[in-house]
Amino acid sequence: MRRKPLDQMVCSIGKALDVVGDPWTMLVVRDALLGVTRFDDFAARLGIPRATLVARLQQLCARGVLERHRYQEHPPRTEYTLTEMGRALRPVLVTLMQWGDEWMRTDTPPTQLIDATDGRRLDPVLVDRDTGTPLADLPVRAVGQVADGIRATTSRSL
Amino acid sequence: MRRKPLDQMVCSIGKALDVVGDPWTMLVVRDALLGVTRFDDFAARLGIPRATLVARLQQLCARGVLERHRYQEHPPRTEYTLTEMGRALRPVLVTLMQWGDEWMRTDTPPTQLIDATDGRRLDPVLVDRDTGTPLADLPVRAVGQVADGIRATTSRSL
Repeated sequence: MRRKPLDQMVCSIGKALDVVGDPWTMLVVRDALLGVTRFDDFAARLGIPRATLVARLQQLCARGVLERHRYQEHPPRTEYTLTEMGRALRPVLVTLMQWGDEWMRTDTPPTQLIDATDGRRLDPVLVDRDTGTPLADLPVRAVGQVADGIRATTSRSL
Repeated sequence: MRRKPLDQMVCSIGKALDVVGDPWTMLVVRDALLGVTRFDDFAARLGIPRATLVARLQQLCARGVLERHRYQEHPPRTEYTLTEMGRALRPVLVTLMQWGDEWMRTDTPPTQLIDATDGRRLDPVLVDRDTGTPLADLPVRAVGQVADGIRATTSRSL
């Protein structure tokens, strides 16, 4: 049986994981969302080998998640900022953080999200846009190429 | 510089990625959410090498994301179902799917989420629970151990 390359999967989750499926890649995106832009700052915060960081940054630029900017000429200095495509990963990181907060036995969530205007603590929840009902309270069913064809006896609740 | 093991990171995102940071692991969880329970069904759908699938299923059971059940004794047959911890990954997979739908140049999203009771198409969005405001429309700022200490000139918008 041949393994299907992630980028050739029909599934959008498979395609997405082809770009951001590596843990260090996700952590680079996390730090970019937090405002980190410089190579040395990524390296110091992540404790990632420099060669690995070079590869991850290049890959994220090639895939359109990050952009390189030269912000100083003498000596040359480069910064990395998220594209619109990269900023669109925020919900993925927020839901991942919430899962970690809840299930990884942290005493107090190490990071909180607040409204920058009034400091109010935010509590992100995934809802249906039309009705405002939390997805967790709905009988959600997945339909389509990836979901169909599973034994009829099983639920399809993605 | 030493690489920090993911599970020793303060950050909940780092800890979460230690459990589900591998692309195949995420795809096993996706299929489990869709209702796949049997080894052969995971193997056939994912096109994953059997040894890799064995390792991923064992790891997910050991970390509390999946549970093994013996559903037949002669011959012995095992099924894998998500624990509450595993089902709690749904928002991560949904937001990842949405990002893939939007940015991986799929013509039509290959999988849609519907309300199983009335077939209505769902449009998941991350909002603040108290106000119902989409996070994308808020000036979100991250505070805490992971977010603090970044240069003051940068935004902290996770």
